[in-house]
Amino acid sequence: MNNALVRELYDRIDALPIIDIHTHVNWKTGTAANIGEILSYHYYTELANSAAFQDGKFPFGDPEALTREILPKLALIANTVQYDWLMTISREFLCLGPDEWRPENWKFIFDRSLEVMDRPEWRDELVAQANIVKVFLTNQYDDDLEGLDTSFYAPCLRTEPFIVWFDRADERAKLGAFLGRPISTTDDLRAVITKTFEKFMRHGMGYAAMSIPAGFKTFPVADEDAQRVLDKALAGGAWDCCESELWRAFAMACICDACRRYGRPFHLMIGVNRDVYAQGVPAGQDLFDSVNSMRGYDHVLNAYPDVSFPTAVLADTTGLELTAAAWIRHNVYPSGHWWYSNQPTDIAREIRRRIDAVPGNKAIGYFSDAYYLEFILPKFRMYKFELALALAERMERSLIHPNMEPFGLDDALEMATNMLIHNPMRIIGISGLA
Amino acid sequence: MNNALVRELYDRIDALPIIDIHTHVNWKTGTAANIGEILSYHYYTELANSAAFQDGKFPFGDPEALTREILPKLALIANTVQYDWLMTISREFLCLGPDEWRPENWKFIFDRSLEVMDRPEWRDELVAQANIVKVFLTNQYDDDLEGLDTSFYAPCLRTEPFIVWFDRADERAKLGAFLGRPISTTDDLRAVITKTFEKFMRHGMGYAAMSIPAGFKTFPVADEDAQRVLDKALAGGAWDCCESELWRAFAMACICDACRRYGRPFHLMIGVNRDVYAQGVPAGQDLFDSVNSMRGYDHVLNAYPDVSFPTAVLADTTGLELTAAAWIRHNVYPSGHWWYSNQPTDIAREIRRRIDAVPGNKAIGYFSDAYYLEFILPKFRMYKFELALALAERMERSLIHPNMEPFGLDDALEMATNMLIHNPMRIIGISGLA
Amino acid sequence: MNNALVRELYDRIDALPIIDIHTHVNWKTGTAANIGEILSYHYYTELANSAAFQDGKFPFGDPEALTREILPKLALIANTVQYDWLMTISREFLCLGPDEWRPENWKFIFDRSLEVMDRPEWRDELVAQANIVKVFLTNQYDDDLEGLDTSFYAPCLRTEPFIVWFDRADERAKLGAFLGRPISTTDDLRAVITKTFEKFMRHGMGYAAMSIPAGFKTFPVADEDAQRVLDKALAGGAWDCCESELWRAFAMACICDACRRYGRPFHLMIGVNRDVYAQGVPAGQDLFDSVNSMRGYDHVLNAYPDVSFPTAVLADTTGLELTAAAWIRHNVYPSGHWWYSNQPTDIAREIRRRIDAVPGNKAIGYFSDAYYLEFILPKFRMYKFELALALAERMERSLIHPNMEPFGLDDALEMATNMLIHNPMRIIGISGLA
Repeated sequence: MNNALVRELYDRIDALPIIDIHTHVNWKTGTAANIGEILSYHYYTELANSAAFQDGKFPFGDPEALTREILPKLALIANTVQYDWLMTISREFLCLGPDEWRPENWKFIFDRSLEVMDRPEWRDELVAQANIVKVFLTNQYDDDLEGLDTSFYAPCLRTEPFIVWFDRADERAKLGAFLGRPISTTDDLRAVITKTFEKFMRHGMGYAAMSIPAGFKTFPVADEDAQRVLDKALAGGAWDCCESELWRAFAMACICDACRRYGRPFHLMIGVNRDVYAQGVPAGQDLFDSVNSMRGYDHVLNAYPDVSFPTAVLADTTGLELTAAAWIRHNVYPSGHWWYSNQPTDIAREIRRRIDAVPGNKAIGYFSDAYYLEFILPKFRMYKFELALALAERMERSLIHPNMEPFGLDDALEMATNMLIHNPMRIIGISGLA
Repeated sequence: MNNALVRELYDRIDALPIIDIHTHVNWKTGTAANIGEILSYHYYTELANSAAFQDGKFPFGDPEALTREILPKLALIANTVQYDWLMTISREFLCLGPDEWRPENWKFIFDRSLEVMDRPEWRDELVAQANIVKVFLTNQYDDDLEGLDTSFYAPCLRTEPFIVWFDRADERAKLGAFLGRPISTTDDLRAVITKTFEKFMRHGMGYAAMSIPAGFKTFPVADEDAQRVLDKALAGGAWDCCESELWRAFAMACICDACRRYGRPFHLMIGVNRDVYAQGVPAGQDLFDSVNSMRGYDHVLNAYPDVSFPTAVLADTTGLELTAAAWIRHNVYPSGHWWYSNQPTDIAREIRRRIDAVPGNKAIGYFSDAYYLEFILPKFRMYKFELALALAERMERSLIHPNMEPFGLDDALEMATNMLIHNPMRIIGISGLA
Repeated sequence: MNNALVRELYDRIDALPIIDIHTHVNWKTGTAANIGEILSYHYYTELANSAAFQDGKFPFGDPEALTREILPKLALIANTVQYDWLMTISREFLCLGPDEWRPENWKFIFDRSLEVMDRPEWRDELVAQANIVKVFLTNQYDDDLEGLDTSFYAPCLRTEPFIVWFDRADERAKLGAFLGRPISTTDDLRAVITKTFEKFMRHGMGYAAMSIPAGFKTFPVADEDAQRVLDKALAGGAWDCCESELWRAFAMACICDACRRYGRPFHLMIGVNRDVYAQGVPAGQDLFDSVNSMRGYDHVLNAYPDVSFPTAVLADTTGLELTAAAWIRHNVYPSGHWWYSNQPTDIAREIRRRIDAVPGNKAIGYFSDAYYLEFILPKFRMYKFELALALAERMERSLIHPNMEPFGLDDALEMATNMLIHNPMRIIGISGLA
C-alpha cells in the first residue's frame, strides 16, 4: 500500500459531492434528533445484542435510556467498521473524539448531540458539511410525499407489498384502500400499480425497488393463472409454494411493465432471508443465504430489455455472478455493496472485479442504505477509501503491467467520478445536477 | 507488506501461550513416537497419493517403511503449507534443516526422530517449547478418560454416533452397550446422552461437537415422530431421506438439551462430504460442497438461545455467512479455519471479515485440528502470521483512513490476545489459566 | 507490491515459451485476417453491446463495418482487461499505440491491420514473436483434420454432441452420418466414439473435452437403461429431466472408457449456463451459476482412476472445491482460469490457493481460450503478471515467515516453469518439446 498515493487519491475522491441512490431516510426529518436515534440504527443494537445478549430488548422509545444502555457495550464492538462510522459522526458532527465515549459520559454525549442535532438548521448544515447533493428514499406506495423537496430527494417505490407480501390479507386490504376498491382482479393489481407510479412520478420518482428473498424465480405467467391464484387467496386459501412463486413472478412482471411505461429503473436487491434470527433487534433479524444464484432472474431480464436493472447482491457468493451479468447484459448495472457485503473485504474484491470486467459506464459505485442523513458521510468514506486503494493499486500496476498503458491520477479520478457521479446520474436518470 | 512491522507483530503474537480448542490428539500418548507417525498424518499421505498415485495404499502399520516411502514424494509437495509444517517440526524439534530431507537420508531422519520423540520426557519438553497450555480433544462417548490430566486436556464429545451414524445398527448396539440396555426409545437416547455428559463432565468436559454433512437441516421434531422412525430402524428398516433428516434434527436437539443442562457449548463444524474419494488414504477421502448454507441451522440456533455455538465452516462459500451469523446472532461464535479453508488465502479473507464486522469478544482465532501435539506449533504459526499481516495492515490503514483512529501495536496485540486467549477461555469456559 | 521484483519475475516468466492447452483457434487459418476479425471476438462485441446496447446486432459478416461500429464504443470499455488485450495486440503486432484508437481513425487502423495480418507469413511471424510452441484446439468429431501440423497443433475433441446435445435429432443424425449408420443402439454410440477417437489419435489427439452445464450429475448407468432412453428419443419422444440426466451420465462414461483405452485425458470445463441472455451477441449469451458444486462428479472421478481429468471451473464459488479436489484426488488437475474467472481478481486468489495446497506437479497454469492466435500473447501476459505478483509475494513472505525457508528467484522461476511448461506437458502428454 502506497500510503501517500492512497491518501491523495482518497482526498480527491472525497471532494466529490455525494449522490446517494439508496437510503431509508425519513424525508420529513432527515437527520437524527439526538445520539440515541443514531444508536437505534440496527447496526448498533444488533452488534450490542450479539456481543452482550439482552434478547433484542432495548428501550427503543427512549433515546436517553437507549444511549445509556448501549454505551457500555460499545467497547465490545470497537473493532467494527460500524463503530468507526459512529466515531466519524461523533468527531465530525458533534466535535467529540472517541475518548469521550466512556459509559459514564453518556449524558454529556447525549446533551451535546441535542445541542447540535436538535436545531432546525441542522439538516442543512449537515448536508452542506457532507456535501450531499441528492438522496434517494425508500417509500411505501401510501407514504405521504406532499411537500417533498424533489431537488434533493427522490422517492423510490418499495414493491414488496405487490409482490412478496401479497399473500397477507392485511397487505391486500391496505392496497385496496389505497386504490379505492378491493384488489380482486389482476387488472386491479395493475390499477394500483399505475396509481402508485402516477403518484411517485408526480414527486420525481427515482425507481422501483425490491429486496428479494433467496431462491426467487421469474418466468412467464398467464393472466388467468395469476387470477386463479388471486381468487384462491381472496377465498381465504393459503398459497402453496408454487402458487406463491407464480404470483411473485406475475406481480414482478407487472411492476416491470410499469417501469417500462414510465421509463423508470427497477433496482433489484437480491438475496435476503427475512426474520430468521428470533432473538434479534428490530431490523436485525435478517440474514442471507450463500446458496442463491441470479439464474432465477434470466426471464425478467430478457423480457424487459428496455428496463434498466441496477442490482445489488447481499451474498459474496453472488458477486462474480453480478459482475458477469453486468459484463454481458446491457440492462444489468452493479449497484453498490449491500449490508453484509458492505465491509472492506468484500467491497475491495467487488470493486476490482467491476473495474476490470464491467464497462466503465455501468457500475454505480455506492449507496449508503442510511436511516439518517448523518450516516451517509461515514459510509461513503468507507467506500471511497477502498476505491482509492483499488485505484492506487491500478496506478502502480500500470507502471509495470505488460498489457497496460500508464494509468495516472487523472485517469483514476475520472474512473471514480464515473462510478460515483456520472453513472448513477445517467443510469437512474437524475437531472438538475451539475 | 511492511516486513518489519509484520515480523514484530508476529513475534509478539507468537509469544502468547497456545490454547488449542480443537484437536484429535490421543491423550494417552499426545506426541508422536517417531517421524513415521508424523508422516502418517493424512495431510502427507493424501498429498503424496495425489502427487504420485498409489491407490491410497501406504504401509501405515510400519513407521519406518512409511518414512522410506513418503520421503521421495515430498519434493512434489514442497510448495504446500503442509510441507512447511513438517519442516518446522523438523527444524524446531529434531534440529534438522530442510536440506536433510533427501530420500536416501530417510533412516537418519527416522533415527533422529526416535532419539528425540521416543523418550518419556518428550511430551513435556514439547509442550514447554511450544508453550501450549490447554488442549481440547475429540472423544467418542466410550473413550477411556480415566487418568486424563484435566489441567492440560479437556475432552470434547463427538456427537456423530447419536446423530448422523445412528442409522447403523452396529453404532446403535455400541451405544446400547455403553448405556447398559438397548436403545429402543427416545428416552433411551436421552439416557445415553445424559450418561455420556455425566462421564465427560467428570473429566472436565470442553464441549459437544459435530462435523456435519452439507445440507443438514434442523427443525422441531415431536417425540412420537422420532420414536416412529426409531422403531422402523429397530425393525431392520432402512430410513429414507426424510426419516434420516428427521432423526438427525431430533437427536441434535437432544444434544442441545444436554448442552443447556450442563452449561456446555456445542461446537459445529459445518459442511463435510465424507467418503467421496474412493482411492484416498485413511482420513483423506473427504471433501466439501460449495453448495451449502447455514440456513438449515436457523431452527436450532433460535431454539437454544442459551447454548453457545462456536462454529467452523469447511467451505469458503460459507465464510461470509458465518461472519454475518456471528455479527447478529448472540450465540454463534466464528471458530478457527477448518481443513480445506485452513490455508493462507482463505484464512486471510476470513480474519479480515471477522475483525471488521464481528464483535471483538466473539471470534475464536484458531484451532489446530492436530493428531499429534507436534503439529500445534507449526499450524498456529501459520495462522499467527496471517493474523500479524492483517493487524499490520490495519495499523497502516488506520494512519490514513478517514473513519479510523490510530490503531497501534498495543491495540493490535490486544486484539490478537482476545482472539487467541480471552475469547476461547470465556466462550468455552476454560478456568484455571492465567 | 515490490515493483522491481514483480517486474523482474514477470520478465523471466515472460521469457518462457507458450504452451496453450485450450483454444478455439481455427487451424486452417490460425491468425485473424484483419482487425475486424479481432474485434469480432465475443469479448468486444458483448462488452460493446453491454455498454451501448444494439440488441446483439453487429455486422459480423463485414469486418470493415464491424471495425467502424465497434471503435466508438471502445472508450466505454477502456477500463477492462479485455481492452488491454486489444491494446497489446495493437502495440505489439500492429505497432499502433492506444492513441491511434480514435473512432475517426478506424480506416487507418483497419488498413494497417490488413498490411500486417493479411500476409501468408503472418502466422509464422506471430508465432515466433509470441514464442508459442504448442496450441491445443477444440474440434468437432467431424472437423476436417487432414493436413493439420501436429508438431504445433493438437486437436481436442469436443464431446458435447455425444453427451449434452444428444437429445437433438439433428445432432444424432449428424453423428450417424459420421459413423455411416444411424445411432440406434448404445453400441452405435460406442462405435461413433471409437471412430472419432481413432480419427483424432491419427492427428495427435490432445484430449477429450466438455463444457458442462451447472448441476451435472454422474452415476452408474446400466446399458439397458441407456438403451431404453435412446429408444424413446428415436421414437420421437422428448426426454424428461431424469432421462436426460441418465443419458448424459451414460455417454460421459462412454467417453471416459475411450479416454482410458486411448490413454488420453478428459478436460472438464465445469459450470456454464448456455443461451441465457436473449439479446446477446453470438457466443456472448452464456453465463454461469454460482450454485454448482463438483459433488456431481464424484462417481466419474472415482470410476476412472486411470483417466486424468484436467479441470477448469467457471464460477468463483467452485474455486476452492477444485483446489481441494486436486489436493486429494490424484486424477484431478486444476487447469487455468476460465472465462468469467479469467480476470485478475479471481486469477490471483486461485493461484495462491493452488500454490499453497496442491502438489506442485499438478497445476496447469493457464490456457488462453483464444479464437485467434493473436490473443494468446496478451492473455498469457495477464496471467503471467498475476503469477509474478503471487511469486514475488511468496518470496517476500519467505523472508519473515516462521514456517518457510527462503524462497528465491530461482525457486519462483522453477514453480512458474512447472505450472506453465512441465505440468501441462506431463499431464496431457505432450511430446517433442524441449
